[in-house]
Amino acid sequence: MQPAEAYAALTTLAREETVLASCSDLLEWDEETFMPRGGVENRAEQMALMAGLLHERGSDPRFGELLSIVEGSDLAADPASDVAVNIRELRREFERERLLPRDLVEEGARVATFGAQAWVDAREAADFGVFRPWLEKIIVMAREEADAVGFSETRYDAMLDDYEPGMTTREVTALFAGLKARLIPMVEELSRPADLPAHVLRREFPVDRQMLFANAVAAAMGFDLERGRIDTASHPFCTSIGPGDVRIAVRYQRRNFAQGFFVLLHEVGHGLYDQGIDAAHYGMPMGEAPSLGLHESQSRLWENQVGRSLGFWEHFFPRLKSIFHESLHDISLDAFRRVINRVTPGPNRGRADEVTYNLHIIIRSELEQAMLSGDLPVADLPGAWNEAYRKYLSVTPKNDAEGCLQDGHWSEGMIGYFPTYTLGNIYAAQLFDRADRDLGGVESAFAKGDFSGLLGWLRDRIHSQGSRHSARELVALATGAAPTPEPLLKSLDTRYRIT
Amino acid sequence: MQPAEAYAALTTLAREETVLASCSDLLEWDEETFMPRGGVENRAEQMALMAGLLHERGSDPRFGELLSIVEGSDLAADPASDVAVNIRELRREFERERLLPRDLVEEGARVATFGAQAWVDAREAADFGVFRPWLEKIIVMAREEADAVGFSETRYDAMLDDYEPGMTTREVTALFAGLKARLIPMVEELSRPADLPAHVLRREFPVDRQMLFANAVAAAMGFDLERGRIDTASHPFCTSIGPGDVRIAVRYQRRNFAQGFFVLLHEVGHGLYDQGIDAAHYGMPMGEAPSLGLHESQSRLWENQVGRSLGFWEHFFPRLKSIFHESLHDISLDAFRRVINRVTPGPNRGRADEVTYNLHIIIRSELEQAMLSGDLPVADLPGAWNEAYRKYLSVTPKNDAEGCLQDGHWSEGMIGYFPTYTLGNIYAAQLFDRADRDLGGVESAFAKGDFSGLLGWLRDRIHSQGSRHSARELVALATGAAPTPEPLLKSLDTRYRIT
Repeated sequence: MQPAEAYAALTTLAREETVLASCSDLLEWDEETFMPRGGVENRAEQMALMAGLLHERGSDPRFGELLSIVEGSDLAADPASDVAVNIRELRREFERERLLPRDLVEEGARVATFGAQAWVDAREAADFGVFRPWLEKIIVMAREEADAVGFSETRYDAMLDDYEPGMTTREVTALFAGLKARLIPMVEELSRPADLPAHVLRREFPVDRQMLFANAVAAAMGFDLERGRIDTASHPFCTSIGPGDVRIAVRYQRRNFAQGFFVLLHEVGHGLYDQGIDAAHYGMPMGEAPSLGLHESQSRLWENQVGRSLGFWEHFFPRLKSIFHESLHDISLDAFRRVINRVTPGPNRGRADEVTYNLHIIIRSELEQAMLSGDLPVADLPGAWNEAYRKYLSVTPKNDAEGCLQDGHWSEGMIGYFPTYTLGNIYAAQLFDRADRDLGGVESAFAKGDFSGLLGWLRDRIHSQGSRHSARELVALATGAAPTPEPLLKSLDTRYRIT
Repeated sequence: MQPAEAYAALTTLAREETVLASCSDLLEWDEETFMPRGGVENRAEQMALMAGLLHERGSDPRFGELLSIVEGSDLAADPASDVAVNIRELRREFERERLLPRDLVEEGARVATFGAQAWVDAREAADFGVFRPWLEKIIVMAREEADAVGFSETRYDAMLDDYEPGMTTREVTALFAGLKARLIPMVEELSRPADLPAHVLRREFPVDRQMLFANAVAAAMGFDLERGRIDTASHPFCTSIGPGDVRIAVRYQRRNFAQGFFVLLHEVGHGLYDQGIDAAHYGMPMGEAPSLGLHESQSRLWENQVGRSLGFWEHFFPRLKSIFHESLHDISLDAFRRVINRVTPGPNRGRADEVTYNLHIIIRSELEQAMLSGDLPVADLPGAWNEAYRKYLSVTPKNDAEGCLQDGHWSEGMIGYFPTYTLGNIYAAQLFDRADRDLGGVESAFAKGDFSGLLGWLRDRIHSQGSRHSARELVALATGAAPTPEPLLKSLDTRYRIT
């Protein structure tokens, strides 16, 4: 078989696998948004079947044979070409996939569905005991997965590699150490109570009006509602079902405007990335983000760097005030901006401000590493969790629901996922800083409701690049420097010390 | 291999196929309810892939081999046993499936998705020309399908067999002829204008309150909202994603209470059937309805026999009146009941009353038979359609949107589906008549809001029977007589001649 023919066959195989995965994505979207409770057992069977089919395809020996034909041929000679990138990434994915036993994959999907349900029950009852057996199973399966796919230094490397390819435990630990050392004192210093009218954002914000405002903001930012939608779910997320079908789910709170709104900006950031990916590459790595951390950088950039800026609110605050006049009539733009840029340590990641947020992530990363290695028995998680919160944030969760049961990630089998949030924050600040300089200051455009300059920069440097480079390389290429926490620390320092 | 082992393997295969089909069902549900417009191309790919996978499984030669081992063994000796029923039906489905070429199946799924989109566009533009090329393609593919699976007298037999197994064109024609002969004069006689306050149902009925009322009625009828849900869609439907996950979609109209409400009752009727099927048989024919006509009988029974009865409204009318007091304060229960039981010939099937309804169906059945046989060129459909409406109902659609473009069935490739609606009406009246006699009159219970007696009768005689018998046989067993239009004509005569 000729290389061109082999590449065409590979494209067909990969595309079919992506279409199949997109069916599974819709099942997940539905599970989070609309599925009735009684549907959970069948959903577990559906997810297991899809996982099995996907694995079967992903580990199809034909992939290996076809890849061998293209690799080393003239077709893939230029490592920067689309073909070479696709071949490189397909090989990487295939090598991981073929080492995973099908039983483990199917069982993983089943355990994830039931585990997620058990976690919901456990959280409702504020009782870790209800979830513990599932988490134990999930940790054991994560170890089996790591052992099956292999790793260089520690099993956690294998976990990370699934979400942030190329990033090692050692590198993440180093980046996080630099951040932690500066954040702990910063939190302590900035969380001294200031005289801010924060209570106004806890007044009445009717959900239907929040939705109208949110949709208008999403559209202004560039999110195309003909090629996507925005729903509500108890856990916000964004998923791309396919080109032209990017779905966001958020959660509005009647008496907490900021909570719902910044989650919306966050998910729209993900959505803009998905809508910015070149549909011509659908089904191939050039049509995918290189890592979750890079995907997260886009959500964080819009949520924090854009959404907490003065320019953004110069444009939107008058509109906001007219929509929620009864709740916002007595707060100025300046006070509003201070309120949304203030530090308030608490036990909850989802409600955390931008400064404390990364400490929540560092706690989770450290604890999951310890559970995976066996240093921390799963049964001891609640105690270790609370201890870490006291140490890093000086807060104590009042029960497991407020503590180690607050996030659903582990219940869905996602170990090694949490670090990507903070990597996203690091990348986001670094990218925004560079875009701002390249574009000669973006806030004046924001103040006119114009986000097209920034979006264009991101489309060009990030969204359209697919998996051409690893996240780390792409950030370095776009900004001229390897990822470092400095721009993030600098931006926090600037925005949270508004005087 | 021993018969028991072969049967176990068959069960696994069939169940897996059902789970896969349920993924496809969710894709369809989503397409009708929430999918953004931009998702249509990927959805077509998803549906084609799923159709291909399903066909691959449904025609897997292992089915044939395993069936041969069980057939004729002691396991299947009693033809009334679950095993024998499952084997009989799996064989029937397998024989159809294995004769269908995979290309035709996949292409059919693709054409259905695009055809449905073209139909929406055509209807919006009231221009049959936009849809014509797709309908031509769909008719050609239906012929190919009939030729592939074979038929006894006419290609339409093969089409019917997919929706109403065992029913032939000849039998349907005979049943419909009996109905038509009596309905045409009945419509003429009953549609003389009466002095009824029909306009009150076109006053203001806020959709949110309609939804609350609808959900309360659905629950009272026995629909379990923990194991199902009710959404809105531009085309109402009910789909069972799996045991415990039965989904209804309806469409409320602010200024047409009856339209939305009777559609709801209809879909709840389907939903009650799906929720009444024994989950232990999930994945096997004993866990499925034997035909669409029988499924439809359940929706029609609740919509018409129950929902238009005096007893039903003796219970619900006071509640309805209190919810929509401003619109219903000046209408009595008696007048309300006459309004919902009145004959008003019009061009639209979806808005048709119960008496004219079956003439709409007979028109479609005759026209699709003519298109399939080639007697009616697709290009001539609009003219033939309008001619039939003048002849049977004395009405003339004002354009194609109001005429031959009003239904989406053909656009999704469903030829031979329409007759099942009228078969459903025939079965429904016959079943209700018998249940009423067996239970010593059901309306007095309805008047107390109690539908459990009727639901119990249906659960026992129909829902729990799965595919043990064909629809025709099951109706005969439950009522003591072969299906006949007489009970339907009698019930129409009684309810629509209220004096």
